[in-house]
Parts: sequence; C-alpha cells; structure tokens
Amino acid sequence: MDLERFIRDIPDFPKPGIMFKDITPLLRHPDALHEAIDQLVAPYRDAPPDALVAVEARGFLFAAAAAVQLGCGVVPVRKPGKLPAETHQVTYELEYGSDALEIHRDALQAGDRVVVMDDLLATGGTTAAAVRLVRELGAEVVGSAFLIELVFLNGRAQLDDHPVHSVIRIE
Amino acid sequence: MDLERFIRDIPDFPKPGIMFKDITPLLRHPDALHEAIDQLVAPYRDAPPDALVAVEARGFLFAAAAAVQLGCGVVPVRKPGKLPAETHQVTYELEYGSDALEIHRDALQAGDRVVVMDDLLATGGTTAAAVRLVRELGAEVVGSAFLIELVFLNGRAQLDDHPVHSVIRIE
Repeated sequence: MDLERFIRDIPDFPKPGIMFKDITPLLRHPDALHEAIDQLVAPYRDAPPDALVAVEARGFLFAAAAAVQLGCGVVPVRKPGKLPAETHQVTYELEYGSDALEIHRDALQAGDRVVVMDDLLATGGTTAAAVRLVRELGAEVVGSAFLIELVFLNGRAQLDDHPVHSVIRIE
Repeated sequence: MDLERFIRDIPDFPKPGIMFKDITPLLRHPDALHEAIDQLVAPYRDAPPDALVAVEARGFLFAAAAAVQLGCGVVPVRKPGKLPAETHQVTYELEYGSDALEIHRDALQAGDRVVVMDDLLATGGTTAAAVRLVRELGAEVVGSAFLIELVFLNGRAQLDDHPVHSVIRIE
C-alpha cells in the first residue's frame, strides 16, 4: 500500500512558505492507519522496548496504537505546564527563539529501553530534545520512529547516536 | 483487572481545589493500557463506527489505538489554528469565558456513523461541542466513550441524546 498518497500537502501552513504535510487523510482511512502502525512498529517486533515516548500532540495518535501492538507502555512528552506530577524539563533552540518539553520524572527507570515516536521528522530539534529527556532520566534510547521523514531537512544529523526509522520518506 | 488503581490523584492541578486524574501510570503499564483499549471499544465491536472523533490532546492517546482495534478511521478535533485544511468551528461556554474547537470540513460525510472519544468525562462541555461539530457536518453520533467518568459532575446530562460509555466510573 502506497501510504504517501494519504498525506496531503497544505501550502503556507502554519506560515507562508511552509508546505505542511497533513496526516489527517491517512488517519481517516482504516486500512492506511492500520498499515502505518504496522510499518511503524516493524523494526521493534522482535525485541520490543519497555516504552514508547510520545511527543505531543500528533505523536500521541501513533504511539498508543503502536504500544498496544508491541505490548509496551507509552510515556507522554508535553509542553510545559501540561503534565500534572513532578517533571524534568529540557529547553531547545528553534529557528527563532527556544521551546521546552517536559516528562514525568517517575515515568522511566534507569535501564529502561525506549523508542521515541512522533508523526514527523523535520529538522530533528524536537526529537533530539525528547531523546535528552529520556537519557537524563537514565533510560536508554534504542531508536526513534516517524510516520514521515522530510529527508531534505536532514533531521537525522541531529539523531546520529541511535537508529532512526521512518515509514514515508519525502525527498 | 482493576484499572482504577492505575489512575493517580494529583491535588491542586491545574489550579487550587482541583483533584486531577493522572492517566500516565495506566499508559505506562502495558497490560493496563491494552485492557483499557479493549474495554473502550467493547460496545462497538459488533457494529464498528466509520470513525472515532478524537479530542485533543489526551483523547488522541486512546482513539488511534481504539480505531486500529475496530478497523475504523480517526478524525482529530483540535483547538483553533491547529488543523491545516478548511475547518468548521464551534464555540462553547466554560465556567469562566468560552473556548472553541475545530474539525476539518472534509473529515466526515453525511451519514457517517461516529463515536466521540476522550480520556475524561467531567462536566461534558468539551464533548458536547465535539458532538455538535460532528452533527453540523451531517454525520451521526452513535456514542461517546471515555476512559474515566467523574460521575459526580453529571456530564451525562449534557450528552443525553446518544449512548455514553465509560470504562472507569469515579463516584
């Protein structure tokens, strides 16, 4: 099944000059959604991680479904102020300014094996921040996985210390 | 399996006097997550809907996993400005002020059978707004489903025009 045909290009969103990759047609199509989850989890079936770390908000759409397939748990990573218990935070640089992400301090233990999951790999900054969060709790990042990789942005360069998996590669 | 023991009470979040129901321990526990999804979809297995409508952001964690189990699609409902294509919007009243939710206009067709899904049924205002979005696109709400229902807030009173399903009822 050609999953890329379920991804819709939306020009100038969220700002002029950006071609947004809209995943909602894929989500709406039962067979495409199922196939996407199957392909997302394929590299981890033989040795499932202890948890998938899901980046808010679109990452949530894939991680819980993937976790059920793998028989592992899900740990949400969110913007500051969203997680209710004690959190660990990292800040990271964006093209203009900076942003921050949080994880619950008790969500992972030393030695836990983790895959970071999101819908899109663009420049890699958000995922690199999530990887830092996981490691700073003492857990191990055994991979990161994405529905879509925008290959021309070379986000893998920021994630060169672990295996990166993507389902749809857009050159 | 007693799923309620995987829900953690966090006092005074997000503001003083609120006892927040933290679902992250349930998400982190593989068997509890799997069981929660199984129980969420149980009423719909015999006649799956065409789509689950998922309310941002925690609803995303359950809806895609549930959709894969049911063999249906997922339609995200988000805060204004988050969905990239043409949207339909509703506003709804909160205790103080108002809020708005959006859905893609092309996400549902007239006659589509839909279940609205979220993590928590509290006062029901958010879900009632999502129900309005679905109906204003011409689709049919055949149910709403929640991991947790705060029974003492009587959110069902706002949802009395369709069947409501909840997995964990907190009196």
